[in-house]
Amino acid sequence: MGHEFDTATAVTRIDEADGRLTYAAEVFDGWDIGGLANGGYLMAIAGRAIADATGRPPLTVTAHFLNPGLPGQAEVVVEPIKQGKRLATAGASLRQGDKELIRVLAACGSATEELPVLVDGAPPELPPYEECPAEDSSSDPDAPPAMGLTMPPPGLMERLANRIRPGDDAFRYGRATGRAEIAGWFAFRDERPVDALALLLAADAFAPPLFNLGDLVPNWVPTVELTVHVRGVPAPGPLRCRFRTEYVTGGLLSEDGELWESNGTLVAQSRQLALTPRS
Amino acid sequence: MGHEFDTATAVTRIDEADGRLTYAAEVFDGWDIGGLANGGYLMAIAGRAIADATGRPPLTVTAHFLNPGLPGQAEVVVEPIKQGKRLATAGASLRQGDKELIRVLAACGSATEELPVLVDGAPPELPPYEECPAEDSSSDPDAPPAMGLTMPPPGLMERLANRIRPGDDAFRYGRATGRAEIAGWFAFRDERPVDALALLLAADAFAPPLFNLGDLVPNWVPTVELTVHVRGVPAPGPLRCRFRTEYVTGGLLSEDGELWESNGTLVAQSRQLALTPRS
Repeated sequence: MGHEFDTATAVTRIDEADGRLTYAAEVFDGWDIGGLANGGYLMAIAGRAIADATGRPPLTVTAHFLNPGLPGQAEVVVEPIKQGKRLATAGASLRQGDKELIRVLAACGSATEELPVLVDGAPPELPPYEECPAEDSSSDPDAPPAMGLTMPPPGLMERLANRIRPGDDAFRYGRATGRAEIAGWFAFRDERPVDALALLLAADAFAPPLFNLGDLVPNWVPTVELTVHVRGVPAPGPLRCRFRTEYVTGGLLSEDGELWESNGTLVAQSRQLALTPRS
Repeated sequence: MGHEFDTATAVTRIDEADGRLTYAAEVFDGWDIGGLANGGYLMAIAGRAIADATGRPPLTVTAHFLNPGLPGQAEVVVEPIKQGKRLATAGASLRQGDKELIRVLAACGSATEELPVLVDGAPPELPPYEECPAEDSSSDPDAPPAMGLTMPPPGLMERLANRIRPGDDAFRYGRATGRAEIAGWFAFRDERPVDALALLLAADAFAPPLFNLGDLVPNWVPTVELTVHVRGVPAPGPLRCRFRTEYVTGGLLSEDGELWESNGTLVAQSRQLALTPRS
């Protein structure tokens, strides 16, 4: 342990009955967006319990978001579904009291060492980490006051050392780029290495790209479902991430993410379905 | 009913206990690929039971594939998870005897009538339906014998009236296009209208685009997980579909699908994670 992400996602097996494993957990303060626990963080807690139950790291994880998570005690119930040679499948429910926060379905296992056969895509082009603005600074010296000055800054951003591609923070200053895309670097503030569990967090650790579209007021974007495919364990260093929304129709929106390690290998893909925020 | 897809996905509630609903179902012969039930077809059976249990059509459905489905009796156990105002969430397990075929997690509900806010993509350009080759004919008069002559033709293709974009059937004749993409029209042979349940089938009703890459021998591509987002109910007529594989790395591959109705509205997105076939 030692890193705050590990402390904040720790689980302890407390019971085993009817083929289900129950884990004590805690939703920690400071991994939230405006007071509500970040969805990727909740997935990482459930993911850690699933990894413990199956003995393998998560490979593909789908979470349905049911109720907001608040700081305090929590419980993960894991149902092992299939223990195969290459993969193990399990379900999980993360709860606080009588409220279920997320329901998860996951396959665990690892990518092999096989050489890539097809890479029909590329990491986002980003200036070096040091040249990208931090979450609490602006890439535009003439920018009006940030939303952060009137809204409490997200607690999650104090745990992370993310850097946004210059210009992609425009939405914070009421100057949306007009393009539903946000790219940047993902890293932990305490330089914890990124593993499969951390990729679940990283897949949900940037502002919704929808905010840069400009047609909708930035507002809570309720995720219905988020699926993360872990494609590899990143080498040390910040991740290059890109999130895009292509379709906002019928009160729903999709958001696709790609996470690449610094040397240019894809390490995760994500897709979520969310409800269009009400303005 | 009356249409064969409805007959082949029919479910009957037979039990309710411990908050779970059990449905009798049947995996029908003829909805298979080489004898094994098509994955999208199995999702549609589970989806129908979930729709019955929640009273709403599926909106986002994730299935994990555990064991192959064979013709015969089956059972769906549905666990209602949350009945919300806008959405209902449920899990489901489709079983035959002591074998679980798929485990499903779904949110049910419908897209609203709101006008599209963002459509940053387009349907595939396809010749008119009549000008695209059927599954059992070739777009290339000089083509060598099709794989279909040495392998039994997929039963599923007798239920469907899909048409492939000319050239995209190259893989069948040992002449892969070199591009991991397959586009075409989806339709039922008996002209059944396409609804949310049928979209689950449509999302898995074309050959893997990987086959057109040419680097790998066409072979069974075992899907680990498939998620379908239903974005609307299509107008009558065949769907324009495009499936692409962008990343084949570490023994895993992703496959992304877009399904558009004939007038150019996105009706579904799909993404799956699969194991790279062994040659």
